[in-house]
Amino acid sequence: MQHWTTIVAEKRARTLSRIPNEWMHPNIIQDMAEKNVKNACKYLDGILPVDEVNITSLDATALVENIASKKLTSYQICYAFCHRAALAHQILNCCIEIFFEEALERAKQLDAYYASTGKLKGPLHGVPFSLKDQVNLPNIETTIGYVSKVGQKADKMSLLAKLLHEQGAIFFVKTAVPTAMLASETVSTLHGRTLNAVNTSFSSGGSSGGEGSLIAAKGSPLGVGTDIGGSIRIPAAFQGLYGLRPSHGRVPYMDVTNSYEGQELISSVIGPMSSSLRDLELFTKLVVDCESWRYDPDVVPIPWRNFDGQQTQKLRFGIMTWDGMVLPHPPILRALEETRKVLIHHGHEVVEWNFPHSEELIDVAEQVYGADFFNEVEEILNESEEPVSDYMQLARNNILAKGGLGKPLSVRQWWEVSLKIRKLKQQYLEHWRDTANQTSDGKPIDSIICPVWPSAGFHDREVEHGCENYTMPFNLLDYSCVVLPITEVDEMKDKPNQAHLAKNASDKKMQDFYDAKKFGKMPVCLQIVCKRLEEEKCLAIASIVESCLSTMP
Amino acid sequence: MQHWTTIVAEKRARTLSRIPNEWMHPNIIQDMAEKNVKNACKYLDGILPVDEVNITSLDATALVENIASKKLTSYQICYAFCHRAALAHQILNCCIEIFFEEALERAKQLDAYYASTGKLKGPLHGVPFSLKDQVNLPNIETTIGYVSKVGQKADKMSLLAKLLHEQGAIFFVKTAVPTAMLASETVSTLHGRTLNAVNTSFSSGGSSGGEGSLIAAKGSPLGVGTDIGGSIRIPAAFQGLYGLRPSHGRVPYMDVTNSYEGQELISSVIGPMSSSLRDLELFTKLVVDCESWRYDPDVVPIPWRNFDGQQTQKLRFGIMTWDGMVLPHPPILRALEETRKVLIHHGHEVVEWNFPHSEELIDVAEQVYGADFFNEVEEILNESEEPVSDYMQLARNNILAKGGLGKPLSVRQWWEVSLKIRKLKQQYLEHWRDTANQTSDGKPIDSIICPVWPSAGFHDREVEHGCENYTMPFNLLDYSCVVLPITEVDEMKDKPNQAHLAKNASDKKMQDFYDAKKFGKMPVCLQIVCKRLEEEKCLAIASIVESCLSTMP
Repeated sequence: MQHWTTIVAEKRARTLSRIPNEWMHPNIIQDMAEKNVKNACKYLDGILPVDEVNITSLDATALVENIASKKLTSYQICYAFCHRAALAHQILNCCIEIFFEEALERAKQLDAYYASTGKLKGPLHGVPFSLKDQVNLPNIETTIGYVSKVGQKADKMSLLAKLLHEQGAIFFVKTAVPTAMLASETVSTLHGRTLNAVNTSFSSGGSSGGEGSLIAAKGSPLGVGTDIGGSIRIPAAFQGLYGLRPSHGRVPYMDVTNSYEGQELISSVIGPMSSSLRDLELFTKLVVDCESWRYDPDVVPIPWRNFDGQQTQKLRFGIMTWDGMVLPHPPILRALEETRKVLIHHGHEVVEWNFPHSEELIDVAEQVYGADFFNEVEEILNESEEPVSDYMQLARNNILAKGGLGKPLSVRQWWEVSLKIRKLKQQYLEHWRDTANQTSDGKPIDSIICPVWPSAGFHDREVEHGCENYTMPFNLLDYSCVVLPITEVDEMKDKPNQAHLAKNASDKKMQDFYDAKKFGKMPVCLQIVCKRLEEEKCLAIASIVESCLSTMP
Repeated sequence: MQHWTTIVAEKRARTLSRIPNEWMHPNIIQDMAEKNVKNACKYLDGILPVDEVNITSLDATALVENIASKKLTSYQICYAFCHRAALAHQILNCCIEIFFEEALERAKQLDAYYASTGKLKGPLHGVPFSLKDQVNLPNIETTIGYVSKVGQKADKMSLLAKLLHEQGAIFFVKTAVPTAMLASETVSTLHGRTLNAVNTSFSSGGSSGGEGSLIAAKGSPLGVGTDIGGSIRIPAAFQGLYGLRPSHGRVPYMDVTNSYEGQELISSVIGPMSSSLRDLELFTKLVVDCESWRYDPDVVPIPWRNFDGQQTQKLRFGIMTWDGMVLPHPPILRALEETRKVLIHHGHEVVEWNFPHSEELIDVAEQVYGADFFNEVEEILNESEEPVSDYMQLARNNILAKGGLGKPLSVRQWWEVSLKIRKLKQQYLEHWRDTANQTSDGKPIDSIICPVWPSAGFHDREVEHGCENYTMPFNLLDYSCVVLPITEVDEMKDKPNQAHLAKNASDKKMQDFYDAKKFGKMPVCLQIVCKRLEEEKCLAIASIVESCLSTMP
């Protein structure tokens, strides 16, 4: 067997080798630095041909419209996105598998199909679609960040990929993930580090950081990430994107490669990420309409239900300013306050959301994530002798510090964790119902609005300056969550919060980490949260909130 | 602490003491023997006043109609059922908690409510409703067959009980279960043995045997059992009743006491048992209409969906004659054949159902049931020092014989079991889809028809002459199943199957066990099986099948 360093070097070279020579730009990072540009998206807008910039500025919905009306061909679109993705990858290191040639060939076929039949294949006809590495495609490797998985191809195409393909999507890249997908940044010994497309000195977030980075650079209009602790929402929030964490059983996960397969207490879910909210709905409705419960036994047979809320209807919101453990940074707090004001201004009602067992939500979720004491990860790392990741060391120390056993749980300890989760779910639902006592019309809230992450991100190699406090609870609860861009960090408005006395060490660390200048102009997103299996409602409410925000003075 | 024998004696005496003196009949078993009657239901018809017999012959649907039209009062109905249940218990030992006084008081209140408002409380207004012991009620013990739980009252009323109460149900008894609910008969050191109401020399089945026995004796019109391996369906089948095993998440299990709480790979589910099919639908629609997902996080937000199949519409059935491991007895095979003929006669289509991985379904399910090597059961038994049950010894030996570890699984072994289940679910669904290749119109089957149990039951103390081969798979798959009475054992028609060569030791044991005379006149039921969360369809199809059978020449 080859030494792991050789495997890594060859894998990285192979990925790059799939980029056509004419799209290679060996000095691209240097060029950005010389031009003093940190925003990869803006930089690419400046160096790409105008017609390609115009195309890549469109969302999936608009792309299909342009194809349908024959203003653009699939080929033109695919070419523009492949080109841009090629350059984005050279800046951001966001892709792990590249197959532009096959994508362009398929685009030609789709154009021919449309020309000859006058029909589109489906609602995604001709749309370039990026996939997180976990999604399996024929003859393409799935390495999920492990050196030892280089060369491994899944025997089955993921069901979701099949459905999207049938509806006309064109796959052209698979995007990078951290080792085993178990981190809130995107770094692995295998592929290196994925940078933030809005500001390359920041982390792309993770674990769907490759996806977030590529989409934010407009190298892909629409793609899928997965989320077991925030992995769709964190990279979406760090890069000003829209993302949906659906509930388990709404979007098929069948034959998607994963860590800890068979772990069913907190299910990893797969969902869309895009620079457009309506694209999230396009994707989700399309997938639900495929009735994938006929194929995937984990999918719940719930057809698409239009949310009957009208723009004019009064909604009730619970705002969770903070969880009592780690206070969000000033820009996040400002986003919450601005959203609150604008919602009230539009006649909606806002109450406070303070769930009294937030700490337990985090503790129990961590018991799930560390249940096998990372034995599976270690075993797979050992196969290639690649070094144990910093992440795993941190995570293990965290478990031991919390009184963990230093070994995997027994099945009975696992059932105890399961019972704790059930109890927390019941308590959360009860707390939700009890908001009826706070609203003027005695109805419970429709949705929670809360931070995604306590800061607007972190610089690379600063992952420990963060916490999944605002994402993990909704994985444990299995609620539907939409990430919505609200504003950006404003040095003038977002002064440090001197009055706040840190509650604990994590809180102090987070507050000390704030520096308005450092975060300047970084996007600020919030989460719209609805209950389990309320994806339609969550997307519709996100749209209403966005529409209210658009009228903000 | 008292000796366990004292606790048992006192508990049994306490249960009996809740029966009014005028309803005590100390010689009832002797009287039946003298009259040479084995059927408790028929016996009770003979000794009870005619008006009470008339009332107790009605199903829940008819009872509510009679209350609504003021032909009967709740009190009259409650009195008749309490009286009959009191006698049934003295024959069958089917109850564990008795509270007639409270029930009759509530009946009076309901009558007064109706008289003063002209409104019924709900679709179960005034219907006596029996509950398997696991269901928690205020101030009433929940012992689930353990001596050590005597005196324990749950701190919360089960959500389902609350909902049923709100809809007008009158609780009057809780019914007996085997120790820990882990058996296909109903026997415990605590309460003794529950007899079959159709023929008292047979077992009532289990674990909802108390419920099945009481309802078959017409001591209750409608009740709920639970099912993790067949526990609703087996007692229903052994006593000629209707029963629904809903999918997990359709009927709320919240705050129902259980064994192995937190074990979530094969979920115990709660569902109705009755002597009427329409009562199953009455119950299920009512419960779904309560939108209990607002309270129980495990309930899936799927409203009641009327199945659009008409009596005249062609349906497609897969008939599973046997699973390739244990051939059902001749009466069961005849029931399948008669059903097949009658369905074809009515224009429906029937294809063969042969899932190739039946053995794996059983093996994997057993890995789940034995995952903790019965440590929990043993611990609870030890608290009172009651002896280890025969059932647990058998089950443990079975695990060891199959290469089990003799100790609980680790969390990673548990995840492996979980993965096996997911794979089997996918294979089953694929096999179901593939039936489209067998039907004339290229559509997959609507439903499977199959045995519930390979025999029409077993005599008391013969539980080892049985197997859950036809029930357990649908627990693992989480499919919706309705038990439907088809015929009864006929000595003349159901001659032993001489031609069959036993496939294995279990098969031989089952075949050797057959004796047409011994089973004579025992009810024969079959299962109608639909996919996960298809309760409405399953109930509607059962009704169509029943209607076809009613025209059988």
